[in-house]
Formats: sequence, structure tokens, C-alpha cells
Amino acid sequence: MSSIVRAELVGVGTELLLGQIANTNAKWMGERLAEIGVDVLYHQVVGDNAGRIAEVLRLACSRADAVLVTGGLGPTEDDITRDVLADLLGSRMVRVPEIETYLRDRFAGFGSGDMPVNNLRQADVPEGARFIMPERGTAPGLIADVEGAVVYAMPGVPAEMVEMMESTILPELASRVGTAVVRSHTLRCTGIGESRVAEILHDLFEASANPSLAYLASAGEVKVRITAKADTVDAAEALIEPLAARVRARLGDVVFTEADEGLEQTVMRLLRETGRTIACAESLTGGSVAARLTRDEGASASFVGSAVVYTADAKQRVLGVSTETIDGPGVVSEACAREMAAGARALYGSDVAISLTGAAGPEPHGGADPGTVWIALDAADVRHARGYRSTGDRDRVRRWAEQAVLDLARRYLDGSDLPTSDRLI
Amino acid sequence: MSSIVRAELVGVGTELLLGQIANTNAKWMGERLAEIGVDVLYHQVVGDNAGRIAEVLRLACSRADAVLVTGGLGPTEDDITRDVLADLLGSRMVRVPEIETYLRDRFAGFGSGDMPVNNLRQADVPEGARFIMPERGTAPGLIADVEGAVVYAMPGVPAEMVEMMESTILPELASRVGTAVVRSHTLRCTGIGESRVAEILHDLFEASANPSLAYLASAGEVKVRITAKADTVDAAEALIEPLAARVRARLGDVVFTEADEGLEQTVMRLLRETGRTIACAESLTGGSVAARLTRDEGASASFVGSAVVYTADAKQRVLGVSTETIDGPGVVSEACAREMAAGARALYGSDVAISLTGAAGPEPHGGADPGTVWIALDAADVRHARGYRSTGDRDRVRRWAEQAVLDLARRYLDGSDLPTSDRLI
Repeated sequence: MSSIVRAELVGVGTELLLGQIANTNAKWMGERLAEIGVDVLYHQVVGDNAGRIAEVLRLACSRADAVLVTGGLGPTEDDITRDVLADLLGSRMVRVPEIETYLRDRFAGFGSGDMPVNNLRQADVPEGARFIMPERGTAPGLIADVEGAVVYAMPGVPAEMVEMMESTILPELASRVGTAVVRSHTLRCTGIGESRVAEILHDLFEASANPSLAYLASAGEVKVRITAKADTVDAAEALIEPLAARVRARLGDVVFTEADEGLEQTVMRLLRETGRTIACAESLTGGSVAARLTRDEGASASFVGSAVVYTADAKQRVLGVSTETIDGPGVVSEACAREMAAGARALYGSDVAISLTGAAGPEPHGGADPGTVWIALDAADVRHARGYRSTGDRDRVRRWAEQAVLDLARRYLDGSDLPTSDRLI
Repeated sequence: MSSIVRAELVGVGTELLLGQIANTNAKWMGERLAEIGVDVLYHQVVGDNAGRIAEVLRLACSRADAVLVTGGLGPTEDDITRDVLADLLGSRMVRVPEIETYLRDRFAGFGSGDMPVNNLRQADVPEGARFIMPERGTAPGLIADVEGAVVYAMPGVPAEMVEMMESTILPELASRVGTAVVRSHTLRCTGIGESRVAEILHDLFEASANPSLAYLASAGEVKVRITAKADTVDAAEALIEPLAARVRARLGDVVFTEADEGLEQTVMRLLRETGRTIACAESLTGGSVAARLTRDEGASASFVGSAVVYTADAKQRVLGVSTETIDGPGVVSEACAREMAAGARALYGSDVAISLTGAAGPEPHGGADPGTVWIALDAADVRHARGYRSTGDRDRVRRWAEQAVLDLARRYLDGSDLPTSDRLI
């Protein structure tokens, strides 16, 4: 049986108010809390001021079942969340030997001399509160009941917050919601817009509660996330699979992966799995396709290189693009893309080569309107080119071109249909 | 005469609570407000719910002089900030012909048919409120006095928020603070850490009030910002210049620019100004140096290309790195970096070439420990190489290597000393 749990997020720290950092903790926590069915109704952010922290916590406790506080648990004078909590509880501070030992051992391990006395404050816990032992940082988390709400106080350092959320706080809240297990499964799509995905899945979206369906769009990609709550992992997965099968069947091969990987990682995985190597020839993307393909370690097993050829002269010198093409259809053309891909495959001696050329804008380039993009793939068995027109600013044209050419490689490698040119061209 | 102005930031949108986006607007606004001397004491975030938005705004108006709201001004049903403001003012909605005309013209310009009736809601302004005409978006901003505070409502789209902050809201608030003019001047440094900058400028920092001194560190860069408040632009600049001169003298040529440009933009500007061209040879950075150099339009006047050569074989095939070097000191060596730079200059026919090779990690590569990086520059008059050891993860090693090689090019182009290898190597 599940019940409603309302949570409120409180960020403590003057650096948040001064805009020195963004409250990315709240984003991470909000996403995870939504997954386990906890409703977040408000965020508050406040500086390192005892009176204002107390005011914010009182307000949060008056309207939420759980208040998740980040920040103000460090060793310095301006870290006062611990003291404000003691005041709200009306209780004195107790030094916890277990934490003190942990802190002293850690400092000894650093080999950085005696621990500053200030650091011992982190071993203090308000009487009546529980604590969460840190694994990587020095600040324990605190758990206290304040005016009918449970307050979870965590360090503001994102990695330390994540550790305590995952080890303690999310499981406690999930069990309050009555959700024993939450599981998500994500299908990642490219070459399709969010509104088109929503249209295709409209009735499934409307009918879905548990498992639920959500869309998350980012540059050149739409994620479809299916989330189920159940008593066991098996039961959650049994809820997910029939909906995943329907989504998969409707979306077809615009889904490039169902694993936890980006498009460039899918391409690299497919190359590894099939024992093939790739090279690129880049004009408008200026090296960013190669930069993405080499992000993870071990890339050199499948990625050989990329010829970034920004000028017409470089296209000729480095990749052997013909004078007929340069003087005829020009540098932004099907012929140029095809010759660039073939040239890169020959130059680098790779199994597959992909190429891009286009007018990133805002000015026309090589006789082509801004947004015109040609991509090509060259392999022993397949030679394919595709042209399309992109909208938006220079960054967007470049980002979508990266996606288009990586998806062309993905489709070639996993045997999907290869995309044809848009009618616009 | 200056007076205290307390501001509060309110973010409206269920997507913020669900963690689909982070409240980066608050970071940007906080930074700008701090610069003009406005104190931000709280942030609040609330979903698209009329009752809760009203509650949050009432609380903010009760404790702040100015409340800056982002989000909820769009054309859809769940955009209700406008209606909540009308309720708080107790006033009816008035359709503003000037906005209506603007919206109809914009839609006609899109060539996307008739404007949906919903969009006309954006031409409605609560009686008694002022509005800010949008320049790029379709949502006007709103300004209203609510219970003694002035409420500024802006669209949640960051670019539209920035536009209204800069055109209208920051100037209004600056004049309330009694700051007629706020001017900043930023010196951007690379090849030096924030703590070292702070050490060098310690006494200036301690003594500075108006103008004030601030440090902002990001990956491979430290910004030193000098901000002055005065009655006129000339007076503000007269305050800044003596401090800027002292900072400049102390930091020397680690300052790569005092203009509003990133390191890659400085390099491209210096190339343009001296009529020279550049090419790159990249191994561990996998194309990201070239991607940065081609970010802005017009790059092809100075940037020719980059040979991304990820494998030993590619270094030989494409750039002619010698077998003696590959089999001797290896792919991560001074000799390899020098041959890559010379090879890229010959291949692309550029005036200058820069190269990078290294072990990005986490595993050793080519016999070199993770973090070992060699960079080189090759030109008709100068051949220079530098080796150093980087710490941190793969991303950090790559990012710092980009900075190191771009700074080598910058130093060559502006006549600064060229950096020598670290002792570690």
C-alpha cells in the first residue's frame, strides 16, 4: 500500500545566493525523488545565517513530511546547519565517539599532521538525532524529527550528498511511500523530435501510471523513460517489459540504445563487438565528432583518427577531394561528403569512415545556405550519403550534425535502415 | 548615496521540482545582483500551481524589496504566473495592442500559419502592471508592485531572462541601490591555479572595496574580476584602472586576455591580426582543440585543419612520425610531439602548427604514466616543446591539455615567454 510523501528541498550556503554555484543538488534529488514517487512541492535556498536557516526549516517542516537539507555541515565557522538543528530540537550537542574515531583515523591517513580542533565539531550530533556515517567525506549526515517532519541534513558536496541519498535517505523514503523497489528502463532515440515521439506514444502515455512513461529531450536526443514501482525487482521488471515492448515496436530503429550509454558510446560498443575500426573526416563539426568518440578510455582499439579539413585546400591536400568537386558542386555537396569519407578511410586505413561537411552558419558557405549539411559513410560493402537542412544557430547545427553522422554509423553497424536525404535538399 | 536593496529569487515550473532542469537562472541572477550590490537572501522554487505560487510570492514580498520571478509566462495552460500576479494585485487582465501586434508579426514571420489563440494570452497584462517587450522570445516580462515590493516576472528561458535583466531590471535595481553605474573589468589567466593567484594578489584583495576584486576559477582558467560602482562610466573606469594596472603588473603574462573572449578566441584573434594560419595534430584531446578553434563563425580564415591521430599507425601514416620515435621514446614523448607538429604544418601548409600527445588515463599509455602530456609548436621561426604531468581524471587531463597547447600558441603569437617543461618530466 502506498501513501503520499511530500518532500521539500533546502539548500544552505551563501555561495548559492551569490551565484558562485548553481543548486545542481536539487536537480539530482528531484529526479531521484520523483522516481520513487515522492512529491517535491518547494525548494528553498538560504545563506549561512542561523536565524534565516531556522526560519526556512520551520516553514519547510510545517508543510512537508520530509525536508532534505544540503550544506552547512562542514568544519568551518560558517557551517551552522548542525547547530540550527540542535536549536530547533531544543537539545544539546553530544560528541559521538564513533565519528570522532573515524575523523582522527582519516586525518592520520592523510599524513597531514594533527587534525584542526574545528574538525571535531563534525563529531557532534544533537541529542535525539540520528547520524549517517560518511564514506568519502568528513561530514556525517543528520536525521531528526522536527515538528512532525523528518529532516535529513546532508553535506553540500555533490558526491557526498549522492552517497547518503543512495545508502540511506532514498531507501527510507521509498519504504514510507510503500515502494519497496523502483526500477527504470530508458530507450534513447535520435533523428526524431520530442513532439513526434509524444504523438506516437500518446495513448500509452495517457494510460500509464505504474509503470509510468516520461520524455526527456536534449540536443539531438529524446529519452523515453519507463519507471515501475513494485515489491520486488522481478515484479518491477515484469511491469516494465510489456510497455517497453510496445514502445520499442512503435518507435522502431530510431531507438539507438536501451543501455546506459550515449550515442558515441553505442557506436564505439558496436565497433568493439564487431571488431571494426572507424575514422572520420570533419569539416563543419571541426573535430567534435572525434572528441566524442574518444571520450572514454580504450578508444584507440576502435577509433583511428579524424581528418579535420576546414578549408577547401585542406580537403584536397589531406583527403584528396577532387578539383572537379570543389569547383563544381562545391565543398558542401554530396560529392564532397562522399570523397571525404572515402579519403579518410584510405588515409587512416580504417574499416569504416564517416564524414560531414556543411554550412554551420550564420553565413552561407561554399554556395550552400546556412544549415545545409551532407554526411556520408564509406565501408567496403556500403557507400551512403545523406543531405538535410538544419535550423537554429551555429551550435545547434553542429550538435545535430554530430548526432546525424554518429547515427548513420550506428545504423550501418547494427543493420538498421540507412536514412535518406530530406526532400528539402 | 546608496541604500540596501534585498532581493529574492523565485523559480516557477514543475520541471524544476521534478529535477528535469537545474535552476541555473538563479545562479546567473545571483552573480549579477551581487555585482551591483543587491543582497539576495533567499531563493524559492515552486511548481505550476496557482495557490502555491501565490503563497511563495506573498512570502517573498513580505521580506524582500524586489522579487525576481522566472518562468510561467509562456503560452500554454500551465503557464500561470501572469494570472497569479493579477490575483495578487486584485486587478483584471488587459490586452495590450502593442504586444498583440508584435506577436502577430512574429508568427507571420515564421510562415507557420495562424497564431494559436492560446498565444494571445501573452498579450495580456494585469492592470496596474508594466511590461517589458521581448526581443527574441514571445513572452513579455511584467513589473508590478505587490505589498510594498516590486515583482519582476521574466520568462524561464535563460536567453530571454538575460535579455530582460540586462535591458531593464539590473539598471532599475542599480539605480535603487544608488549605484548609477557598475563596471567590471576581467583579466583571464591560464597556466596558474586560483590559490596561487590569490596568494599573489592577497593584499590587494584584502584592501579592495570599491573597486572590489573577485576570483572565479573554472577548468584550466582563473578570472580576476575588478568591479567598481560610481556615478558615471568614466568615474567607474577611473576607479578600475589603477587596480587593473597593479594586478596586470603582478600577474604578468599568465593573463591571456583582458577582452571578453575565451582562450581559443584569443588565439583566433591573434592569428587574424597577424594574418597567419594554424593547424593542429591531436592525440589525447581527440579533436577537441580543433572543435574549440572552430566554434565561432569565420574560423576558416585562420584555421586550416587538425589531424586527429589516435593510434601509433595513424601518427605515422598521416603525419609521418618516424619509426625511430615510435619504437624509441614512444608515442608520448617530446620527439613525437615535435614530429606531429612539424607533420601537421607540412600536411596542411599552415604558418603555425600545434600538437598534443599524452596519456589521458586511467591506464598508462605508450609507456607513459597517466597524466603525462607533451605539447609542441612548429613555425618557420620557432620550434618548441613542453612536457608536464597532469593530475585528475581523464576529462580533466584532456581539458588542461587543451588549455596548455592553446596557451602555447597564444604566447607564441603575442610574444610572451614560451613555457618550459615541468621538473617532474
